[in-house]
Amino acid sequence: MGEFELIARHFKRAALSRRTRAAPSRVTLGIGDDCALIAPEAGMAMAVSTDMLIEGRHFLSTVAPERLAHKALAVNLSDLAACGAEPLAFTLALAMPRADEAFLGPFAAGLFACADAHGIELAGGDTTAGPLSICITVFGQVPQETALLRSGARAGDDLWVSGRLGDARLALEVFRGRATLGAAAFEGVREAMERPQPRLALGSALRGVASSAIDLSDGLIGDLGHVLAASQVGATIDADALPRSAVLAGQDVALQRLCVLAGGDDYELLFSAPPARRAAVQAASRLAGTPVTRCGHIDAAAGLRVLDAAGQPLPANLWHGFDHFA
Amino acid sequence: MGEFELIARHFKRAALSRRTRAAPSRVTLGIGDDCALIAPEAGMAMAVSTDMLIEGRHFLSTVAPERLAHKALAVNLSDLAACGAEPLAFTLALAMPRADEAFLGPFAAGLFACADAHGIELAGGDTTAGPLSICITVFGQVPQETALLRSGARAGDDLWVSGRLGDARLALEVFRGRATLGAAAFEGVREAMERPQPRLALGSALRGVASSAIDLSDGLIGDLGHVLAASQVGATIDADALPRSAVLAGQDVALQRLCVLAGGDDYELLFSAPPARRAAVQAASRLAGTPVTRCGHIDAAAGLRVLDAAGQPLPANLWHGFDHFA
Repeated sequence: MGEFELIARHFKRAALSRRTRAAPSRVTLGIGDDCALIAPEAGMAMAVSTDMLIEGRHFLSTVAPERLAHKALAVNLSDLAACGAEPLAFTLALAMPRADEAFLGPFAAGLFACADAHGIELAGGDTTAGPLSICITVFGQVPQETALLRSGARAGDDLWVSGRLGDARLALEVFRGRATLGAAAFEGVREAMERPQPRLALGSALRGVASSAIDLSDGLIGDLGHVLAASQVGATIDADALPRSAVLAGQDVALQRLCVLAGGDDYELLFSAPPARRAAVQAASRLAGTPVTRCGHIDAAAGLRVLDAAGQPLPANLWHGFDHFA
Repeated sequence: MGEFELIARHFKRAALSRRTRAAPSRVTLGIGDDCALIAPEAGMAMAVSTDMLIEGRHFLSTVAPERLAHKALAVNLSDLAACGAEPLAFTLALAMPRADEAFLGPFAAGLFACADAHGIELAGGDTTAGPLSICITVFGQVPQETALLRSGARAGDDLWVSGRLGDARLALEVFRGRATLGAAAFEGVREAMERPQPRLALGSALRGVASSAIDLSDGLIGDLGHVLAASQVGATIDADALPRSAVLAGQDVALQRLCVLAGGDDYELLFSAPPARRAAVQAASRLAGTPVTRCGHIDAAAGLRVLDAAGQPLPANLWHGFDHFA
């Protein structure tokens, strides 16, 4: 089967998807022309983010194609969530060693299940032979003035985080043979690693409430560093207040701290808000159905202080940033 | 050097680029946040296209990094040209085996030279370790109603092509050892292969004039096939009328026909327009400074007929489509 038939068979179902949408599509021209056309509502800016996932670097060869497709789209949607945008559409560029039906069928199923869950369309793409890699670009719309930025954190703001941290890293440590879990516990943390849920409803609800936001992809310490640099402030984090699953809470304390502080692959939102908006943050959390936890505060003094439950500083060698070229 | 420093050093110059632009930027938030924000003018749709280039498949390891970057961006801009859109911005996802200064410096220089030539900004991206591959997504704006589509060709329309065809394929045949050229002639066709010029001015000028358009990336026969399928028409092509360089015209006739009919990598525009608009097509060509050649016509009868200068049909085994999985 040739490239074009392959694309047609697995990915060309924009029209179907459009009919099942609740809201009218903003994709006015989909797959099959030189470009897709996407029309945001009047007064909205287009929010755009792109991520490339490479086998062996961003995912293990053991992952099921459905979950791989889900994650590739979900991590991009997480970037839209972090700026408070409503998702509209995405493009997919896919390189794979050969046109493999056994891979493409479940990959497309996982991709469209995630797309349908968020009411978005595949607007275009490119398929080619090459080492397995997936590049997705997502498009959302957001009112220009209320987009959540990394640069808005102010001294005195609370720091909040959504959901729970560290399970994805715990799963990776099990794969690496550095931790052991029972089968049921392992499936739970593996699900966190392979099926992250982008916090889109929370991101939208936080527009006008949060002063800054970022999604956690590289680990809390590293990602918070981007907020502090963009906002020219410092912060204090209460390491032991960071939310975690019962499975992770049952591990060695040093491993727990590594996972929640520098775990990576969490795809939760880390955001700041003035203390006067605590009730508004809780209301946004209820509206979105996503739990949030207050875990520190922004300081005028530069630098990051990480404290334990007793208020004692933790040494920085407990964690390290995740560097794609490390 | 870490990933973030690498990106910062080579790619973070959006602010500089913005100051040197003639028109106000539509990129209202650039590199450094979770998303970029792009605001098309009121009433405009966003045109979006994505392409992935893989070493050994889409480019040879012999290509200079400057030219590789130019081509990666230019082939995406060519998709915007084919729909008549004005380019605004692009994102870059780049995988490379290691953070290689000697590669990144000239790659970034080539990328920004092409971006500056078209007044567009790098709005965001992703850099990671992996086999060398480049995924670019481009963003343009176009009035929804006058975007050039593949589906608008009608029986009786003329078929036109811009520029010259086949030099890129001739260069590839030389690299493959199937053709030989003198040094100066080789440099000329190699330039066509490595430094295609997207026909953005012509695409814009053809809005409201052309009835359909596509850019030639896989070869005229294959790409015309997409237009015929989308428009549900047939066509007749005059193979010997297809424009070609003096270097290509000096080759064996069979090689010439292969190169112009099925060469690939031309990045010229193939478009249709009613005969009543011949003067308007020529005016658009002059406005854009891009030569155009009439090379056939659209038929009501399905199928593609390729004729020689004497009006005799050429056998289909003279060419073959370029399939990325063939």
